[in-house]
Amino acid sequence: MTSTPDPRRLVASLLVVRASGLLADGQRRHPRWEHDNATLRALLAEGVGGVILLGGAAAELRLRTRQLASWSDQPLLLCADVEEGVGQRFAGASWLPPPLGLGRLHGRDPAAALHLAEQYGRCTGREARALGLNWVLGPVCDVNNNPGNPVINVRAWGEEPTGVAELVAAFIAGVQNEGVLACAKHFPGHGDTSTDSHLDLPVLPHHRERLEAIELPPFRRAIARGVASVMTAHLLLPELDPERPATLSPVVLTQLLRQDLGFAGLVVTDALVMDAIATRHGAGEAAVLALEAGADLVLMPADPWQAIDAILAALDSGRLCADDLRQSAERRRRALALTCGDPDPGGMDPERPLGLLTNGPSAEDRAFASELLRRTLIVQGGKVARPRSQRAVALVRVDEPLACPFLSPDAPALAFPAAAGFRPRVLDRQTPPSWTEDGGNEGPVLLQLFVRGHPFRGSAADGEPWAEWITTLVRQKRLAGLVVYGSPYLWDSLRGHLPQELPAVWSPGQMPDAQALALDRIGLALDVPATLDGGFTD
Amino acid sequence: MTSTPDPRRLVASLLVVRASGLLADGQRRHPRWEHDNATLRALLAEGVGGVILLGGAAAELRLRTRQLASWSDQPLLLCADVEEGVGQRFAGASWLPPPLGLGRLHGRDPAAALHLAEQYGRCTGREARALGLNWVLGPVCDVNNNPGNPVINVRAWGEEPTGVAELVAAFIAGVQNEGVLACAKHFPGHGDTSTDSHLDLPVLPHHRERLEAIELPPFRRAIARGVASVMTAHLLLPELDPERPATLSPVVLTQLLRQDLGFAGLVVTDALVMDAIATRHGAGEAAVLALEAGADLVLMPADPWQAIDAILAALDSGRLCADDLRQSAERRRRALALTCGDPDPGGMDPERPLGLLTNGPSAEDRAFASELLRRTLIVQGGKVARPRSQRAVALVRVDEPLACPFLSPDAPALAFPAAAGFRPRVLDRQTPPSWTEDGGNEGPVLLQLFVRGHPFRGSAADGEPWAEWITTLVRQKRLAGLVVYGSPYLWDSLRGHLPQELPAVWSPGQMPDAQALALDRIGLALDVPATLDGGFTD
Repeated sequence: MTSTPDPRRLVASLLVVRASGLLADGQRRHPRWEHDNATLRALLAEGVGGVILLGGAAAELRLRTRQLASWSDQPLLLCADVEEGVGQRFAGASWLPPPLGLGRLHGRDPAAALHLAEQYGRCTGREARALGLNWVLGPVCDVNNNPGNPVINVRAWGEEPTGVAELVAAFIAGVQNEGVLACAKHFPGHGDTSTDSHLDLPVLPHHRERLEAIELPPFRRAIARGVASVMTAHLLLPELDPERPATLSPVVLTQLLRQDLGFAGLVVTDALVMDAIATRHGAGEAAVLALEAGADLVLMPADPWQAIDAILAALDSGRLCADDLRQSAERRRRALALTCGDPDPGGMDPERPLGLLTNGPSAEDRAFASELLRRTLIVQGGKVARPRSQRAVALVRVDEPLACPFLSPDAPALAFPAAAGFRPRVLDRQTPPSWTEDGGNEGPVLLQLFVRGHPFRGSAADGEPWAEWITTLVRQKRLAGLVVYGSPYLWDSLRGHLPQELPAVWSPGQMPDAQALALDRIGLALDVPATLDGGFTD
Repeated sequence: MTSTPDPRRLVASLLVVRASGLLADGQRRHPRWEHDNATLRALLAEGVGGVILLGGAAAELRLRTRQLASWSDQPLLLCADVEEGVGQRFAGASWLPPPLGLGRLHGRDPAAALHLAEQYGRCTGREARALGLNWVLGPVCDVNNNPGNPVINVRAWGEEPTGVAELVAAFIAGVQNEGVLACAKHFPGHGDTSTDSHLDLPVLPHHRERLEAIELPPFRRAIARGVASVMTAHLLLPELDPERPATLSPVVLTQLLRQDLGFAGLVVTDALVMDAIATRHGAGEAAVLALEAGADLVLMPADPWQAIDAILAALDSGRLCADDLRQSAERRRRALALTCGDPDPGGMDPERPLGLLTNGPSAEDRAFASELLRRTLIVQGGKVARPRSQRAVALVRVDEPLACPFLSPDAPALAFPAAAGFRPRVLDRQTPPSWTEDGGNEGPVLLQLFVRGHPFRGSAADGEPWAEWITTLVRQKRLAGLVVYGSPYLWDSLRGHLPQELPAVWSPGQMPDAQALALDRIGLALDVPATLDGGFTD
């Protein structure tokens, strides 16, 4: 606050823009949202102060963060939505089962869950730092007390405020002890919505008293634990502010978060490109409203150049006050001072080109990921009988088989049952209901359901048809086993339809290691998937 | 030949072992075939002289080749099967349509085809070098005169010997002028087989005269052009050697290749792990037989340690002669001396972390790839009419949707027709014939067939059902258009069933750029696939 930088640079420093984690423009997976390299260079030269990276591989991210840093003359905030381990978005790092698994474990064994939550944060912080990130956009502090929530769901740390508060505090300690910033989101709480804010603006009818009881405790705890940043929610809370969604509301950001909760760290908006905001306000106006409401940083403005110009115009017109923006910049500077910096900013040692990630996750982190899978799995019933019928099928239900990150042709969910005699068959939303006419209506059926974002809603009409299917298969004595990967709500709704002895598993994680473990637990282990390696070349 | 190295190191230097292009063990796509890093370090410390890399991303490969080099105290042969551009196996580099496209163009415009073949080699050599590879395992010199060939097919440069000879010579010149070794394969010619040597040993009944007429001319021309290496075929040619497949046959390698054709460069086996060899001989014995027959280098021995021990034992027993192995090592040394070395072996300039590939392929290589697509495409008929029916579908047939390298949910083959009103529907080998009951039997159908390894065989019984489908759809006036991506044989067999005005395309390439171009040519262009970006996060 002592220097008086160029206003344009000051404003630009409060923007966080989006880049692919991959180096080449042609490799961007979402070119509509990810700036190309020429634009990124220009934005960073302008003084833009942060970049959010989505998607790619760990090794390439190490190069990418170094490249972005080289395009800027100031320290950057480099962040990613790595709520479920760095490997969730960057292949080759640790990919952890989603937090709700620990939320459920907390109900059975709170001490173990808290210990694992702290390790979860450590693993994420350590790997983020090793790859050049200094800001983890987690934990989700939303209490997922609405099983129909399409957007939070398994990303949450639980379904009741006390457990969530304890777990997120442990996670934050883990991340920040590694010299990386954490981010409590989505303030003031996104757990009780059934609208996806990526598509439309959810409305939360709760009074302040209700928020104090359910939504706010995790944020209060996160703040008490020293969380470096808080991300706003694109939610309308008419009882607090009937006009402005939380992201743009002075009542929510300034009165509630800053004054009542006493948060002195960085307030960052959720992505302003999201339709809940973008379709209601211009690219420039949304950014101005967010800063006016009390946000320090503007994440993914729909058009960064328009955002800069609009904020400068608002400074000129007196809508925004330069002192406030300087204070935001000072908060940003203080946050950066808490990070440990790039562990390997200079050249590259050929022996360890990735710092901590030369050969993937460390033995310690691998052991942790494995323990997390084991501790969060729920198993019931016995072992799957080897089918005697040639018509035995392993049905695998996924949202989308194309580019599915957890299902390659040699994934355990396909290879292990195949080795045991179940012919794999992938079902997706396109697959017609008539699939059973393919002979699938005669032999034993092993059912594996990968469902997380769209939990079972209790009715066959708008939900998944599995309760009905399972009932039929059980009646016909053809259900060989059931694995639900992801949603505990789908699991909860289906387990009542299962005979006690039927082999069944809920695994919060969907990744190949989770598949291997779940299938192992019901007797379908395969040490060497040799026969299913699919040949030795692509 | 002047020094007398440790026999074990001498033997090890003649092995080429396999590694993933990805850094971390856990990321290997074929862990049964790709050594882990501990094993690779041990093998390189033992003196193993080459590594074949399969699969990964360009940026990570740049790190990987540097890492492997750092584990060895001698210059390494670092190679990859990048027959269709480096991007075929390493995402982010140039992915080119397969050579048979140029083979077909050669029939229409030989000069253009030859010019493009030379550029094809230059592009491949330049990018290989930029990523630390010094040996391109191409061109395929096999004359694909058997349309039923399951393993060569579109990888070949043509269907008659003269054109193939000219094209491969141009490709070799292009690669080697960039300081990278080329490899003529699969000697003495794999184009007339209908057995996949990955699975079993094909038998070729031809006499020497026939080989001289069809199979050998491209190899003769490649040798005359100075190709640095020749790869052997796993084929039995009883008229030449009734006992040993070419890879293990002194008649084929020493008499035919060395003496008759006068090849003085490196002879390398095809992968010894392939079943045609591996199931008939032990891991050690196959390597001994190959060297005994006249090969210099042993590629992917089923067990490198066993191979080294068996070769040493054969030296002791007198089956192999140390002078011959020293001569092979000398040929290896001379080949390495022809390469230009790693362009950037030391540290890493943050401004250009990938040498030539900082931001993907160069503008020149992008323009070349684009020209290649344009020149090899075949289009007939008019433009696709915008469907008025809600039931219009775009059927997309692929071998395997899971982990499909050219088909993500936002690929042009799905996104462009969807924007025009055709609901995308992916069919695979699993999809039951009853799919049409899904309402797909009423509206217009745009058919896109991705077929290359398994060409149409002229009968509905063992081939693709498309001729019959197309006839039915044409009769019902429901066929809106046809695109065949890959096999010209499938295209040849289907085009006769099409009305003259029907929009139809053959594209040799299957990659997204090929899809975009093919669909553009029949009036389904989509400049900004905005509505199908699938949201802004994964």
